Amino acid sequence: MPEYNVIGTRLKKVDGLERVTGQARYGADIHLPGMLIAKVLRGPHPHARIIRIDTSAAEQLPGVRAVVTARDFPPLGELEPANLGEMTIDMGAMAKLIMAHDKALFQGHAIAAVAAVDPFVADDALSLIQVEYDVLAPVEHVLDAMQPDAPLLHEDLRTRLPDGKLSERASNVAAHFVLGYGDVERGFAEAEAIAESSYTTRMVHQGYIEPQSCTAHFDANGRLTVWTTTQGSFTVKGQLASLLRLPHSRVRVVPMEIGGGFGGKIYILTEGIAALLAKKSGQPVKLTLTREEVLKATGPGAPCAIWVKAGARKDGTLTAIQARMSYDAGCFPGSPVGNAGLTAVAPYKQPHLRIDGFDVVTNKPRVQAYRAPGATQAAFAVETVMDMLAEKLGMDPLSFRIQNTPQEGDPMANGRPFNRIGLQAVYDRVKHHPAWTTPLSGKNRGRGIATGYWRGGTFTSSCHVAVNADGTLEAVVGSVDLTGTRTSLTQVVAEEFGLAPEDVQVTVGDTDSVGYTDVTGGSRITYTMSAALHHACQDALHQLKQRAAEHLEANIDDIEYAQQRFFVRGSPDKSASLQQLAKASVMGSGPILGKGTATRMGLAHEFAVHIADVEIDPDTGKVKILRYTTFQDVGCAVNPTQVEGQMQGGTVQGIGWALTEEYAYENGLLRNPTLLDYRMPTALDLPMIATEIIEVPAPDGPYGIRGVGEVPIVPPPAAIANSIYRAIGIRMRELPMSPERVRLAIEQHGNSDAR
Amino acid sequence: MPEYNVIGTRLKKVDGLERVTGQARYGADIHLPGMLIAKVLRGPHPHARIIRIDTSAAEQLPGVRAVVTARDFPPLGELEPANLGEMTIDMGAMAKLIMAHDKALFQGHAIAAVAAVDPFVADDALSLIQVEYDVLAPVEHVLDAMQPDAPLLHEDLRTRLPDGKLSERASNVAAHFVLGYGDVERGFAEAEAIAESSYTTRMVHQGYIEPQSCTAHFDANGRLTVWTTTQGSFTVKGQLASLLRLPHSRVRVVPMEIGGGFGGKIYILTEGIAALLAKKSGQPVKLTLTREEVLKATGPGAPCAIWVKAGARKDGTLTAIQARMSYDAGCFPGSPVGNAGLTAVAPYKQPHLRIDGFDVVTNKPRVQAYRAPGATQAAFAVETVMDMLAEKLGMDPLSFRIQNTPQEGDPMANGRPFNRIGLQAVYDRVKHHPAWTTPLSGKNRGRGIATGYWRGGTFTSSCHVAVNADGTLEAVVGSVDLTGTRTSLTQVVAEEFGLAPEDVQVTVGDTDSVGYTDVTGGSRITYTMSAALHHACQDALHQLKQRAAEHLEANIDDIEYAQQRFFVRGSPDKSASLQQLAKASVMGSGPILGKGTATRMGLAHEFAVHIADVEIDPDTGKVKILRYTTFQDVGCAVNPTQVEGQMQGGTVQGIGWALTEEYAYENGLLRNPTLLDYRMPTALDLPMIATEIIEVPAPDGPYGIRGVGEVPIVPPPAAIANSIYRAIGIRMRELPMSPERVRLAIEQHGNSDAR
Repeated sequence: MPEYNVIGTRLKKVDGLERVTGQARYGADIHLPGMLIAKVLRGPHPHARIIRIDTSAAEQLPGVRAVVTARDFPPLGELEPANLGEMTIDMGAMAKLIMAHDKALFQGHAIAAVAAVDPFVADDALSLIQVEYDVLAPVEHVLDAMQPDAPLLHEDLRTRLPDGKLSERASNVAAHFVLGYGDVERGFAEAEAIAESSYTTRMVHQGYIEPQSCTAHFDANGRLTVWTTTQGSFTVKGQLASLLRLPHSRVRVVPMEIGGGFGGKIYILTEGIAALLAKKSGQPVKLTLTREEVLKATGPGAPCAIWVKAGARKDGTLTAIQARMSYDAGCFPGSPVGNAGLTAVAPYKQPHLRIDGFDVVTNKPRVQAYRAPGATQAAFAVETVMDMLAEKLGMDPLSFRIQNTPQEGDPMANGRPFNRIGLQAVYDRVKHHPAWTTPLSGKNRGRGIATGYWRGGTFTSSCHVAVNADGTLEAVVGSVDLTGTRTSLTQVVAEEFGLAPEDVQVTVGDTDSVGYTDVTGGSRITYTMSAALHHACQDALHQLKQRAAEHLEANIDDIEYAQQRFFVRGSPDKSASLQQLAKASVMGSGPILGKGTATRMGLAHEFAVHIADVEIDPDTGKVKILRYTTFQDVGCAVNPTQVEGQMQGGTVQGIGWALTEEYAYENGLLRNPTLLDYRMPTALDLPMIATEIIEVPAPDGPYGIRGVGEVPIVPPPAAIANSIYRAIGIRMRELPMSPERVRLAIEQHGNSDAR
Repeated sequence: MPEYNVIGTRLKKVDGLERVTGQARYGADIHLPGMLIAKVLRGPHPHARIIRIDTSAAEQLPGVRAVVTARDFPPLGELEPANLGEMTIDMGAMAKLIMAHDKALFQGHAIAAVAAVDPFVADDALSLIQVEYDVLAPVEHVLDAMQPDAPLLHEDLRTRLPDGKLSERASNVAAHFVLGYGDVERGFAEAEAIAESSYTTRMVHQGYIEPQSCTAHFDANGRLTVWTTTQGSFTVKGQLASLLRLPHSRVRVVPMEIGGGFGGKIYILTEGIAALLAKKSGQPVKLTLTREEVLKATGPGAPCAIWVKAGARKDGTLTAIQARMSYDAGCFPGSPVGNAGLTAVAPYKQPHLRIDGFDVVTNKPRVQAYRAPGATQAAFAVETVMDMLAEKLGMDPLSFRIQNTPQEGDPMANGRPFNRIGLQAVYDRVKHHPAWTTPLSGKNRGRGIATGYWRGGTFTSSCHVAVNADGTLEAVVGSVDLTGTRTSLTQVVAEEFGLAPEDVQVTVGDTDSVGYTDVTGGSRITYTMSAALHHACQDALHQLKQRAAEHLEANIDDIEYAQQRFFVRGSPDKSASLQQLAKASVMGSGPILGKGTATRMGLAHEFAVHIADVEIDPDTGKVKILRYTTFQDVGCAVNPTQVEGQMQGGTVQGIGWALTEEYAYENGLLRNPTLLDYRMPTALDLPMIATEIIEVPAPDGPYGIRGVGEVPIVPPPAAIANSIYRAIGIRMRELPMSPERVRLAIEQHGNSDAR
């Protein structure tokens, strides 16, 4: 690794004090003169046709300033698509998701919204809205929804088939795609051992603490400003411009501090409603969701059903993998099944691969991304089957994995070659680590291992760096800070300029103040924004070198920068300080502003291996985690403390998904829309999560940085399922592996295979 | 003139609706949680030594969160100078101006300030502060202050002499400089007619409607944010960084909408106090001045005393001009006497020139800039003497001026040559215009003419232009909008891209979001920022051409842009639309962000000629303006409606200065600190101000634009003084030419020369 001064240090969070003292301003902290409060009427039925909505009584209630329903939306056919990174958002479907049009498609689907002078009037107004429904049979489970005779959510939805054509008849299956290469039939024919199994997972919540909150305001000139808790200010801007049919120049989005997102704060479910109400009322409108609304009516993580089959030779070499992945998108297409297909088998090299993916709609809220979207569910299935296969081969599960480790140049699921990857280096660390080598003894105890993978997000990141009059620096980045990126990016800028971090200020800009930047998510910010900042700093340094060359009467190619001074090569006495040129920059020589963009960078693959030691209480089915160790290739740990925090935080979310978390739907009705009943792990439920950082530099970008945020959530369900098997001999095939499910499995199957 | 589509049209003010509906947010419109209200204790004496300040009772009052006095300032010797454009601000003196240190130097000088939970507690706290003064004799008038035996304001102030050395003994004269060339003695010896006279003017208010208001907040990480009504966010940032000894990266200034500035909102008189209180209290602090405080204790326009002598040959050719200009800076050095010297004789070509300028301190508030700072007073003197000289020569005053009109290449007062100027073209319009050619008849009526000049500000302006996903544009400029610049700059961007103005959004950035930009003032913004935006648009268009070249597989040099399409030269069927490339820019090809800076541009000289027809009521001395016509070279009228508004607004301010406005000081005490008693003209006092736009393109910048804001204020006092002379034969030599002064002059002198 190169020698760095600031990168690699454990700089304290630059925004930490503001956060812990309550000064940081989140979505709900906006208060404008004349601001109205919005409330949303939500449908009680998982599936119903809307016959009639009568808002007249609500409109006449004193203090009500606006009521909106689907009638207030523009014709959906006229809405331009918006973009989410390099993908397209169907804004017609988005509009129907924001507010039910002809049908209410899940319990909690917005039917109408009001803006009133206070929340009490708004609540009263909701109670005055009359809605007549024609209640329809709901479709709750993904596999049920795929049945030919299943009730249809969308009478016009046809399946996009693997050949790109549309199916003839309507279906709840929005898409069926195939990934892979080779010939799996041949691969399985060559296999000497085969393992296969089926898995299901439930809908889960991202678990962000801050409910969605936004405030929308149209100024007198018709320009919309929205202050919101979001992962992507420009993504919100694009969606709003489309929904309201405004030129993009007439929309400004100001991202507030965010109390967690994890993929769940990207679409304009609240912003769209607040903006429509602001337009209709002519006043600023604030919409803050309740926790119940967050759980019932925002975008959770996707449930799925997966079947996996894998074959290998006796020597442990994989011959084929096949999988069938049906992901539940909720009420509109767009599950992360594509990501599932691209991530599921990445830790394995195999000659023959076929993955069939299905994107399926059901009467539940439309899913959104959740940390490594799609990958955790798929890893739960694949990593368990691999554990079974290793056992059949009589190999230990680590050796089996090591034997089948892909290397640079080996094909990914889409057939394209991996660039530099660090999985081998991770396994090298694992195999000698006490977490693996120390024996685990005791009754009902077991050690499981699982590998996780995330492709690493890329997309577009923009920033600029300004040199202040005193030589300190201010960088503005277009990316919302979800994970402490202001701190790590401060380190990057300080490193580039050879400054102390306290002389660098990194600020999150709004959509007016910085170049287009895609959503924060997918482990892409530190990776891509550090590259963008590198470009911006180099741009600024080049401008400074030009100034130095003029000042020192030298050729710019002879100017070198070190220790805050610009030298003429070969004439060390001829120099100008950064501070001197900075001062001159505000006295007529002109400001120094470097700009940078990173886009279409190569993938920076993330691999992690987790080892879980568990103990099962056979009486209650409770799984206690005794020890948990994570190993991860992070490329370059800009701030090891923050990297460890990501590894630990993601693992904890994966453990919650593994053991306790699920949306408990019953006939399409959510039974646990509170954080008491939706059970996330607390510190008391968890051991210390040990972290081992491995640094195999990513091939693209200036520092070899890889994103670190996503992959820690991927292995836990599989690692814990495998450890449960080692403890009590039962293969769990459904998430969460809650005490009741484990207890039931023990009752039904004793020490044999359990569902 | 080139053909333009948007430049030259009368686009409605883009911020007009927000302003008239009350939605625009000014300095006082900031409200933060936990915000304290600041009040300032001001000294009652024009000149006093501070013996003791006891704040203990105030500090103990419940609800008081902080009290600051000079003791809370850092050691003044440690303060780095800040910059104002390419000039330096002595922050030690600024600190003493913000709050009295050893001496209170004018009535209203801040002695202490408190921050409390509400304004009532703050007022109570002020009443509990005990101050003991040693009252000293004040010096009120500039000529009195220059006497050798005058009481000294600053015992350590020595005169910077013309040779650059300091005087031996302390003085109230901070500087004495000499401008000019040739040999005035020889010039006067060659003269066949000589006119000379002396003039005085009083302190005047810029007349902005919005009192100073700012809110300062230190976040938990020690970063200061200040929301303020200011003409220059970066200038405030630099001063605050110096005063608080913060790295510049730890200061953010957010400029609010401004309700008029005209030069009076540049220094941190309020921001400095609010920031110190915010630091000491740890809470946000808002300080809003009362009107009385604005009039007593901010920076007004400078009073002065001027003597002018001019000689000419019988044929009307000027042989020499000499002037002695003593400008009153108030209590710290820094009057606009330098500008006075550089502007006073610019409308005249003469072989011999000498101007002696004196910068003098008195016991009054430190002056600040006021529209064409220094020039109006000087023009009052010079233009009246020229009128006298023309009369002595038997020439009409217009012909005399035309005969002595400078041309490109003729020397300015500092000896450097004029670049392209339009004075000749202005006179060409005047001489055939009915305002000049139509006879004026009637008793006590007269027509006067005067010429005004302003050098045109330059300094540094920065901006960037982003291309939105739909091809609309957003420009962020670093300059506060004082005069409608967002509208004219919108036109510039629209012109550059061939878009409709409604597809362009121009926003004023804060100090985080845009490159360093100097204060708005000096007629510099439309001139320099249009150049900066031109650079930014060309930068963005170049980036787009690169994209088009890649897309169309052509060489970038062959790409042409017209009508929102990029064409390959010679292959008109190969093209890509702006919208198409814009869409691609957010889908992976990377954002388009052009940046631009303009600095060290050439001067864009402004000349104006005003003709006033007046009628005097000999019984009351009231001067009624019958007709008023302004002629001005504006280079290129980007928005003629706004240009006319500037011409009219500046003229009205000049008329107020001419006829009614003055700070009525008596023994250093201000007798009229209200807008009832400080009498600005209203619409009822004024005729329609007719405007004639002349367009002689400035040689620098992309459109030939000249600033237009300053020069309209310059000629009115002289034009009206000359018209009074033509009406009643009395030469007024003191401003304002109020009814009482005119009546007194009539009484004292009948039809002869009057003071």
